[in-house]
Amino acid sequence: MSATIAVLPGDYIGPEIMQAGLAVLKAAAAATNFDYQLKAYPFGGAAIDATGEPLPATTLKGAQAADAILLAAIGGPKWDHATQRPEAGLLAIRKALGLFANIRPTQVLPALVPRSPLKDNIVSGTDFVIVRELTSGIYFGEPRELAADHAIDTMVYQASEIERILRAGFELAQTRRNHVTVVDKANVLATSKLWRQIAAQVASDYPTVTVDYEYVDAAAMKIIQQPTHFDVIITENLFGDILSDEAATITGSLGTIPSESRGISGPSLYEPIHGSAPDIAGTGKADPLSMINSVILMLRNSFQAQATADKIAHAVAATLAAGIMTPDLGGTATTESMTSAIIEQIKTKE
Amino acid sequence: MSATIAVLPGDYIGPEIMQAGLAVLKAAAAATNFDYQLKAYPFGGAAIDATGEPLPATTLKGAQAADAILLAAIGGPKWDHATQRPEAGLLAIRKALGLFANIRPTQVLPALVPRSPLKDNIVSGTDFVIVRELTSGIYFGEPRELAADHAIDTMVYQASEIERILRAGFELAQTRRNHVTVVDKANVLATSKLWRQIAAQVASDYPTVTVDYEYVDAAAMKIIQQPTHFDVIITENLFGDILSDEAATITGSLGTIPSESRGISGPSLYEPIHGSAPDIAGTGKADPLSMINSVILMLRNSFQAQATADKIAHAVAATLAAGIMTPDLGGTATTESMTSAIIEQIKTKE
Ligand SMILES: CC(C)[C@H](C(=O)O)[C@@H](O)C(=O)O
Ligand SMILES: CC(C)[C@H](C(=O)O)[C@@H](O)C(=O)O
Repeated sequence: MSATIAVLPGDYIGPEIMQAGLAVLKAAAAATNFDYQLKAYPFGGAAIDATGEPLPATTLKGAQAADAILLAAIGGPKWDHATQRPEAGLLAIRKALGLFANIRPTQVLPALVPRSPLKDNIVSGTDFVIVRELTSGIYFGEPRELAADHAIDTMVYQASEIERILRAGFELAQTRRNHVTVVDKANVLATSKLWRQIAAQVASDYPTVTVDYEYVDAAAMKIIQQPTHFDVIITENLFGDILSDEAATITGSLGTIPSESRGISGPSLYEPIHGSAPDIAGTGKADPLSMINSVILMLRNSFQAQATADKIAHAVAATLAAGIMTPDLGGTATTESMTSAIIEQIKTKE
Repeated sequence: MSATIAVLPGDYIGPEIMQAGLAVLKAAAAATNFDYQLKAYPFGGAAIDATGEPLPATTLKGAQAADAILLAAIGGPKWDHATQRPEAGLLAIRKALGLFANIRPTQVLPALVPRSPLKDNIVSGTDFVIVRELTSGIYFGEPRELAADHAIDTMVYQASEIERILRAGFELAQTRRNHVTVVDKANVLATSKLWRQIAAQVASDYPTVTVDYEYVDAAAMKIIQQPTHFDVIITENLFGDILSDEAATITGSLGTIPSESRGISGPSLYEPIHGSAPDIAGTGKADPLSMINSVILMLRNSFQAQATADKIAHAVAATLAAGIMTPDLGGTATTESMTSAIIEQIKTKE
């Protein structure tokens, strides 16, 4: 039975890097007999243009029926004044598929330390994961109101929503360095106080895991001052949005980082952490690695296709080691030439 | 008529640095005939211990009647499980005095560039101010609920609250480099959409000021990637809390940074941006500069006492230039010896 992958190419550089990711997948699958089929669907701005909606019913249905979903990047100035925005599609698909856990690795590879905005000695050895709650909090809470003289957003958390994301984080910590940092604003917010209470209960089920608590403002500091302190950070939706982008920045290689959004059951969604980069769309400057790394993550976590994933990972490492990289990493390769070089590596190592 | 200053020494290192700030003020006032009187009040954890409440009525009354307020730092593990927390006093005094604008300078002095966690070439020349809304948003919105199975916080903004903080920021930009960045999450939050609408209106009254808009996650990135991009950042309460601490970190000198919280009328409150540092309380390691810089800011902005302020500022610069600094800046001075050195400078230059 072949794996079905829903493909959402998205906007601006989205289709460019998706093409790269799929070309690499094709080569590695052929080399390792990984059997799959692709189904592409419009999503985001492209879907607004085609159907008037960022998440058309057929796209949602296709995503639900798939074994995994690859998404490139959506949004951009073209839809700034549209009635429906591309981002609404992202929120809707997360909610509809119950993708409550967004998993964001922040790893600084030795070769990329010089590209980090942080001083080398501070950033060296950084290797942590942010586990962000993705289907609740102020992103979805009601009431939400926009009037001429006031506006309201509501941050709501059910205890069950907090518990399941905490458990996901603690489980992950057990496969890593057994250290969890729960980030909240418990000195101000009621929802954060509930997070802390539940974290204390959940923690008692994982006696081998060390837990500490940080306020979100202090965490925003520590990510810069002492990033090696962290192993697994667990936090709510909005804080996770801010901190995971801050964390990604210190790797100095935004263009290379993938993420996974995972539900209780059903397909996971894999996507680069960066946006659709309208400023470099069409120039060939987009780094395909974030999409290629998303493909690797999908192969490992959704299909246990370690051989196929390893094939790609080794080819990427060899290509970088040969100095072939896009401008964001200091190189001169284009999206296409970088992709071809990786495919070449896959083929020669067959 | 002499200036009345309400003094809230606070907790842990709070009283230590307050003593330093007041000693320096005394010397500079004597040298320049600045006439003032101090009235000290319990606040925060110290007030909980003394009266059961973090903001006793007499403290609030004294603060309201003063011409300016100096606050050191409050809170700490001692009150982690108290019914009332020290931080509640901070929120209450902000609200009661209508201190809606928190002004946080982020400046990287050339001498301190090596201490920044950011690479020297990225951080050099950084000089921006965060104008944070301080009396509304999710810190104060109702309903707020904490039950066993769910919790709720509410982010509410009145248009008038948004307008006045935007105007404060635009006015400030006119005295600087005429560049405002409004930070929000308008791709998700209704309150942020209202911020953007009102910002567009307010901006039209300041045609010489360039305005750009950033999402809070993107701003959290840019503060690290390109901090010299910013001049004045205007943002809501929670985003300001996170971003201003992140920004402070890149200066490499948290222990030196003051802030001002300003109302429509009535006294401003001046305080260090850091916390009460329980880990170094009583060790003599606390950097007194954040408090001394808060005194300078107070002299300039509340009392137009430029001569007195300059006197202190020059003494601080001379002391640092002589290599006298506390451990946070790489030196070996104690809170007391640093303070004495500054006072010595004030006296010898008389
Ligand atoms: C586009 C936006 C709605 C989204 C979010 O805030 O969740 C993005 O920033 C992300 O982190 O995936
Ligand atoms: C102590 C806390 C309530 C406070 C805040 O979040 O406003 C502090 O972090 C600050 O920035 O002044």
